Amino acid sequence: MQTPYQKVSETRMSDRIEKLACCSLPGSGVTRLSYTKEMESAEELVSRWMREAGMIVRRDEMGNLIGRYEGIESEGPALLIGSHLDSVVEAGKYDGILGVIAGIEVIQAMFECNIKPYYPIEVIGFCDEEGARFHTTLLGSRAISGNLCYEDLEIKDENGISVANAMKNYGLDPSIYRRAARDPQSLLGYLELHIEQGPVLEQMNQACGAVSGIAGQSRYLFHIKGLAGHAGTVPVSMRKDALVGAAQMIQTIERIALEYELVATVGKLSVKPGASNVIPGLVEGTLDIRSIDCNRKREALQRIMAESNRICERRGLICVFEKVMESPAVFCSSTMIDVIESALEGHRMKSVQLVSGAGHDAMALVANTDIGMIFVRCRGGVSHHPDEFVAIEDMKKGAAVLLDVVLKIAKADK
Amino acid sequence: MQTPYQKVSETRMSDRIEKLACCSLPGSGVTRLSYTKEMESAEELVSRWMREAGMIVRRDEMGNLIGRYEGIESEGPALLIGSHLDSVVEAGKYDGILGVIAGIEVIQAMFECNIKPYYPIEVIGFCDEEGARFHTTLLGSRAISGNLCYEDLEIKDENGISVANAMKNYGLDPSIYRRAARDPQSLLGYLELHIEQGPVLEQMNQACGAVSGIAGQSRYLFHIKGLAGHAGTVPVSMRKDALVGAAQMIQTIERIALEYELVATVGKLSVKPGASNVIPGLVEGTLDIRSIDCNRKREALQRIMAESNRICERRGLICVFEKVMESPAVFCSSTMIDVIESALEGHRMKSVQLVSGAGHDAMALVANTDIGMIFVRCRGGVSHHPDEFVAIEDMKKGAAVLLDVVLKIAKADK
Repeated sequence: MQTPYQKVSETRMSDRIEKLACCSLPGSGVTRLSYTKEMESAEELVSRWMREAGMIVRRDEMGNLIGRYEGIESEGPALLIGSHLDSVVEAGKYDGILGVIAGIEVIQAMFECNIKPYYPIEVIGFCDEEGARFHTTLLGSRAISGNLCYEDLEIKDENGISVANAMKNYGLDPSIYRRAARDPQSLLGYLELHIEQGPVLEQMNQACGAVSGIAGQSRYLFHIKGLAGHAGTVPVSMRKDALVGAAQMIQTIERIALEYELVATVGKLSVKPGASNVIPGLVEGTLDIRSIDCNRKREALQRIMAESNRICERRGLICVFEKVMESPAVFCSSTMIDVIESALEGHRMKSVQLVSGAGHDAMALVANTDIGMIFVRCRGGVSHHPDEFVAIEDMKKGAAVLLDVVLKIAKADK
Repeated sequence: MQTPYQKVSETRMSDRIEKLACCSLPGSGVTRLSYTKEMESAEELVSRWMREAGMIVRRDEMGNLIGRYEGIESEGPALLIGSHLDSVVEAGKYDGILGVIAGIEVIQAMFECNIKPYYPIEVIGFCDEEGARFHTTLLGSRAISGNLCYEDLEIKDENGISVANAMKNYGLDPSIYRRAARDPQSLLGYLELHIEQGPVLEQMNQACGAVSGIAGQSRYLFHIKGLAGHAGTVPVSMRKDALVGAAQMIQTIERIALEYELVATVGKLSVKPGASNVIPGLVEGTLDIRSIDCNRKREALQRIMAESNRICERRGLICVFEKVMESPAVFCSSTMIDVIESALEGHRMKSVQLVSGAGHDAMALVANTDIGMIFVRCRGGVSHHPDEFVAIEDMKKGAAVLLDVVLKIAKADK
């Protein structure tokens, strides 16, 4: 008799990922926004595959697609395996999708081997994680966590359609979205497999790793005010050039990020008036800073602001930082991490823990239950881009690790 | 009997400047583009004032407005006094205009005192210096210098109207524009009074200065190519952040400019993809570098490029510089400078020479004749902005210096 590991089919996974990539708006890469026709066709495919894997499929009140694989203790708490079905604009094929497809693959392998776990298992395809349509993230998982307010449903897309109206057009009743929330008592844990979206595993030459947690994030706007002037007539020593000040700040931010071992990024910068023969009088930019350690992040931020002020003072510039967003760090359960690390070793990989610098649905689910995450290597760390790529062998290894963890946690060990 | 100095009226100058400021498109500051209704009404006023000052007025084939004050030797070479009548968009009131009004004032003072110079004097209001309409500069003075090609007349404004068609609509015949060119034999010299557009005179606490020359200018586009990536997932040490590289370059440019005692400016910078959570993969910017000393400028440029390449290499970035424009330095005649410096001393100012970092009509006229320039202090060095301001006492001092120089050069000393 075959073991469930032998039933895991990386070619089936890869085929399904290619098929889902076709559920997209035309254009470069994959564009599949929430509550759209593209999403509907993706859900049709995923529902069919869930059923093939022995699951009973439903759509919850928020629009998340849920396939349930019954356990021996059908009244017992369920283990959730999930990731998201939506994409950014011109995305790759793997972000989100790989986690859903790996979840189905694990169940299908168990189903084909007639393995019934003690606890029920549910595979979830979240309807909205990226937030590319409404510019608010995690709509699907926040609804399940019970942390979505009705105001969130009033946010509009660029055509002026609110989340609530988009839901209606999609056949959902937004007035009962709260029913999608899951009682913590009913949950055993939440597992998510996701591409790393960074280059660390590739650098380590390893297919998979355990995630220790998701970094907390702060986002600021900064404004540097100097004095515009004629590029030919104002001596350099008499200038208040906002861009030279910003340049010094950007280098300081890099130095402090390296010193504090966290990530900090100036991703947007606008220079005004923005003519080749005019000294920049105003620079506006964004600062994104993330760490799993909130004290370290706070200290680094204080240093960045203090040094920026010193730089600007010396140059006769005025610098203002304005907080736009802050989200706390989230930690994976140590039990989950242990189980994932053993699974890595069982599949001849090193026991590795990574911090996720990107946000994931697991961030929302931590409010209800223990979370665990498995990262799978992606080429060059590239994601949110049509060049996003995961090797087929790495998909297999990822699914094998996930299978191990599911068998252990849902108590399906024979 | 009154001397011509007593006839110089700063209130008349100031009144005329205010009146010309009304010849503008509606909106903030002054907007008076070439070959427009606003320019026509400005020319009407200036023509009237020229006639009041005893001049015979004509419009040349390019559209420059010329008032001639006859000399004893009417066949002899003429001394030109000029500046421009056009403005940038949302300009101040003084840039260009002050030089034309001061020229008229000087002639009017002579006229009112019955002073006839040995050589004829012409006051010119150039029709296009700023280039705000066609994005090519010095159309008026280049026509007079004989260095304007017919291709220049084919350049179109943003409504698709060419210079030639704009001239036609203005009652000019573009097919004979070459007749505006002046034979070097017919010219004694060219004098221009202009606001400094920089803060040096203000810093020196002096109303006027002599200009030693106009800096040569090079303009480059630079492109820095790195690798975009997720701001949360790519460790800082593994990034190829094009903006951090650009920031280091911008600081290096400032350091080299100070070292070589010239001006260098990054005035435009675009950051792509330009999202707060994406590491910048591409930065494009402009470099404007100016010096009166072309060797110094060349050496500084070589250093900037070499150090930029070193910075980019160390960071895994690719840096390309692309030359967009180069104009050579232009020198004022030493005779003119001497006469202006004596005039400064005669009016109890220090003998001061400044380099002009901005371009002026004098740059074109140097092809035909000796040039001399007088700078007048403007508040804070601000120009090309509605806040541009010249104190009325400074206008008087500027006109007095100009009068001195004109009397000397056109041989009108009694």
